[in-house]
Amino acid sequence: MKAREIADAVNARKISAEEVASATLERIAAYDRIQPQAWISRFPDAAILGAARAVDGRIKAGQPQPLAGVPFAVKDNIDVAGLPTTAACPDFAFQPERNAFVVQRLLDAGAVCIGKTNLDQFATGLNGTRSPYGAPACVFNLNYVSGGSSSGSAVVVGAGLVPFALGTDTAGSGRIPAAFNGLVGLKPTKGRWSASGLLPACRSLDVITVFAADAEDCALVDGIAAGFDAADVYSRNMRDMQLGQRLGVPLARNMPWFGDLQAERLFAQAIERAIELGYSIREIDIAPLLEAAKLLYDGPWVAERTAAIEQFLRENPGSIDPTVREIVEAGLGKSAVEAFRGQYKLAEYARVAEAMWQQIDALFVPTSPTIYRLREMKANPIPLNSHFGTYTNFVNLLDMSAIAVPAGFRLNGTGFGVSFFAPAGADRALLAMAEQWGNPYPTPEIDLETRMDRIRLAVVGAHLKDMPLHWQLTSRDAAFVEATETAPSYKLYAMADSVPPKPALIHDVGGAAIKVEVYELDAAAFGSFVAEVPPPLAIGTVTLADGSQVKGFVAEPRAIVGAEDITALGGWRAYISR
Amino acid sequence: MKAREIADAVNARKISAEEVASATLERIAAYDRIQPQAWISRFPDAAILGAARAVDGRIKAGQPQPLAGVPFAVKDNIDVAGLPTTAACPDFAFQPERNAFVVQRLLDAGAVCIGKTNLDQFATGLNGTRSPYGAPACVFNLNYVSGGSSSGSAVVVGAGLVPFALGTDTAGSGRIPAAFNGLVGLKPTKGRWSASGLLPACRSLDVITVFAADAEDCALVDGIAAGFDAADVYSRNMRDMQLGQRLGVPLARNMPWFGDLQAERLFAQAIERAIELGYSIREIDIAPLLEAAKLLYDGPWVAERTAAIEQFLRENPGSIDPTVREIVEAGLGKSAVEAFRGQYKLAEYARVAEAMWQQIDALFVPTSPTIYRLREMKANPIPLNSHFGTYTNFVNLLDMSAIAVPAGFRLNGTGFGVSFFAPAGADRALLAMAEQWGNPYPTPEIDLETRMDRIRLAVVGAHLKDMPLHWQLTSRDAAFVEATETAPSYKLYAMADSVPPKPALIHDVGGAAIKVEVYELDAAAFGSFVAEVPPPLAIGTVTLADGSQVKGFVAEPRAIVGAEDITALGGWRAYISR
Repeated sequence: MKAREIADAVNARKISAEEVASATLERIAAYDRIQPQAWISRFPDAAILGAARAVDGRIKAGQPQPLAGVPFAVKDNIDVAGLPTTAACPDFAFQPERNAFVVQRLLDAGAVCIGKTNLDQFATGLNGTRSPYGAPACVFNLNYVSGGSSSGSAVVVGAGLVPFALGTDTAGSGRIPAAFNGLVGLKPTKGRWSASGLLPACRSLDVITVFAADAEDCALVDGIAAGFDAADVYSRNMRDMQLGQRLGVPLARNMPWFGDLQAERLFAQAIERAIELGYSIREIDIAPLLEAAKLLYDGPWVAERTAAIEQFLRENPGSIDPTVREIVEAGLGKSAVEAFRGQYKLAEYARVAEAMWQQIDALFVPTSPTIYRLREMKANPIPLNSHFGTYTNFVNLLDMSAIAVPAGFRLNGTGFGVSFFAPAGADRALLAMAEQWGNPYPTPEIDLETRMDRIRLAVVGAHLKDMPLHWQLTSRDAAFVEATETAPSYKLYAMADSVPPKPALIHDVGGAAIKVEVYELDAAAFGSFVAEVPPPLAIGTVTLADGSQVKGFVAEPRAIVGAEDITALGGWRAYISR
Repeated sequence: MKAREIADAVNARKISAEEVASATLERIAAYDRIQPQAWISRFPDAAILGAARAVDGRIKAGQPQPLAGVPFAVKDNIDVAGLPTTAACPDFAFQPERNAFVVQRLLDAGAVCIGKTNLDQFATGLNGTRSPYGAPACVFNLNYVSGGSSSGSAVVVGAGLVPFALGTDTAGSGRIPAAFNGLVGLKPTKGRWSASGLLPACRSLDVITVFAADAEDCALVDGIAAGFDAADVYSRNMRDMQLGQRLGVPLARNMPWFGDLQAERLFAQAIERAIELGYSIREIDIAPLLEAAKLLYDGPWVAERTAAIEQFLRENPGSIDPTVREIVEAGLGKSAVEAFRGQYKLAEYARVAEAMWQQIDALFVPTSPTIYRLREMKANPIPLNSHFGTYTNFVNLLDMSAIAVPAGFRLNGTGFGVSFFAPAGADRALLAMAEQWGNPYPTPEIDLETRMDRIRLAVVGAHLKDMPLHWQLTSRDAAFVEATETAPSYKLYAMADSVPPKPALIHDVGGAAIKVEVYELDAAAFGSFVAEVPPPLAIGTVTLADGSQVKGFVAEPRAIVGAEDITALGGWRAYISR
């Protein structure tokens, strides 16, 4: 159920808050068998049920509440009285005395806090793997990262445990996990929601955010959470800004996809959809914005992260995740001169952004250009993380409001999203855009047992690039991995009477190295491909020149009947061009 | 003549721009005998007269111009094509290719640029002594500093050489010299006037300013100079802000005077005058603003100065004024972490200022609490300079607009000023306040030969503190220096028939050390004091215990006729209390 549906039902006494809480606890217990690492701490069930009963009591006393009985979760760098704030660093944990300003507003509105969710330690990361409490994974494919740093909050909403959860966003942490888990993520204008009770990452940029299944629920939460707080020096009162229908999209040359052909295609479809919805599209050179983004980690702003935990960093370096430590330590070496030069550069980029807003009402970009597996991310944590931030890092630096919405799913189930960015103060207008956008994409099943991973396939004949059956790979979004050779232990035959002409690769210790191309497909795509392979060919295991094994075309013995041994040519292309 | 009077006369062809220029060059030549160090470079006379003739040509062609024929000077950290920009550092000098944006606007309006004025090197200072081109002095008393960093610009306007001149202001450089030289200094809101063509001091805070004899001329220049410039990333378009009549003044405990009793009295009179003009007065605790000011030099902002000249500083440290170098080098040691922590602190102070603007329309403060002699400043350059910045340093950090206006003169001729501060965008409202304020104070003569300095006076009897004639000192703003003794070579007599009772101090090698109090008075005050000393007393020279000599009460020989030798008592107080 959506947040607003729960609140309406509880206010109308069609269901009690206690019943809602009880059902929530059942779902959570069930999902604890899948991803217990989504949470860092939770209130005891009895406390949650007690809080729900208190809401019911107020309803009975004739006090309707805008979030009556709505369960929610809170990223564990935001204070909730009664639970420790860990920032995913156990040695750093402390017991906050009071609720964060925003949390208090939600509780006052009748929402029921369940607990605190996992995150990239100190909110430093966009992937969700940087936590000693475990790495939450994408709810639709447990091989893939959930996105971060608000990993747990996106997972508990994506898995349907609670209708909304609070995240935070400095470099994209409130948007990347929304994209990967099929959610809407609202990143309010800096200062629209108080940051009192939020442990800073980059204090001048941080905002608290919300994840929900749709924009209507985000709007409901925003209406309660937003408001001036004199205790937060960055809090501000802004008039709501209206937006027209002029959308900017990046020039193709601004758009790296990191080989993610499915994402590229989904974005092209999203642009078509935007046009159908009535938007005009204008291509914008966002190169200066992408440059501005570099200030955040490569430039002086990383020193804000250092400033936030400097004493802890100096006294307890061993308590910090090594990747996070590497990033945060870099801030110690930055000078004030660099910091001010960064401010000047940022002012120049802000001028560029100002000019851009004369031409368009909102910018429309992929939320993330791609997604990676947990194991890929752990092997190469900093560069792959930075790919995620391509379109998110510059947003807070340039004082924009943003909303991330679903825009389809890859064949492997992982979510792809798009984001609308606008100047500060356009939050309500962005929520309206996101409502219109909706979520017309069939949502995959939640992954309860780890989907099959992507699979590598060596092709040797008619599926090679530019050959007649190559389309069977492209239509399945197979990604080209490499052109290589087999181990020197294969013979290649041109089969007789095969249409189109096809070879048969036969393992033979007296053979040679045969040229192959290796592609990678998602499990579903691979399965459908294998289903179409005609006899006497088959998909078996092929040993490559480097000794590794991949799936690949092999042949039944009958394949060589009447076939011509073309091993000496070294590959199928040489035979075709002969 | 005022700028507007010149422009009106030239446009009406009552006088030609060439005649104005010619008279200006005569005044400048005459003043070159007094303070040639006010200038760093000037255009050749022929070029100036040629520029004036060109203006006359346009007038004859039927093109009136708002600044037709008005001569002006430009601080030498602002580019003027055809003259080097030195920033008061000869080894740093370069030939700019074009005029600064603001200079170009003034020239386009018919103004005639005379040349470039001296400044504290790299605009680092508030006193005017930090320049290898010499130290400009206060136009009313050449023993005193002119104020800085826009020293030369204030001097050439204060001495009546040109009706207006451009300065700059980061920490008060456009206001302190206005106060000392009896001028109005407008410090526009950051970004109201383009900073294109200004060598940065603290690039995020710097503004170009104007000095003139009155607010009407400042308003005329502002009307031409203000305007958006896309090339300056800090340029901005703001709506004019209106102000009411609620003035805030600092709590007495916020107000250090550094012993300057005359300044303290002039400020009290200024408050009375503000009330007469219709303002309501409210006391404000400005301690947080004074704290914010510390960020500028003691905090990370000094790194902006380092950033502005870092390469030159590293390669040519010997080319930089030692005091300036000491200040700017401090920025090398500041970290980005400190810079961001400074930003957080500043945001807190900005919140305090915001709350203050709810209570008052403008803040009303002394422009500088005191003034020092050139030799005092050179002996103790950093602490005494910081006294000048008490009420100016926080203004740009907190994004305020400001105007400094005259508020009287000390007995030694040096100017005392008050400043109105308001939020960004209130420039025109401040100009209107300054117009109403006017300048009703009789302006001293320009000092052409170095006025007599302050004079120390030893008193020994009825002028001691709490004695019947002490008021003759307090009414002249005499500053208490010390209680000490004479050299052990005086006799003290209680004179006969003296009303009120008075002693006579008689030099006698067989005498003793006699208790005295030393006061310091301005020359005019001292002169009037001496004029009132009745016989047989006189003002001569007294040797103190430390061997130094000061002016002091002595007596004619007749004084001891019938007098009682009270030397054994050691001083007059002992005699009185006996």
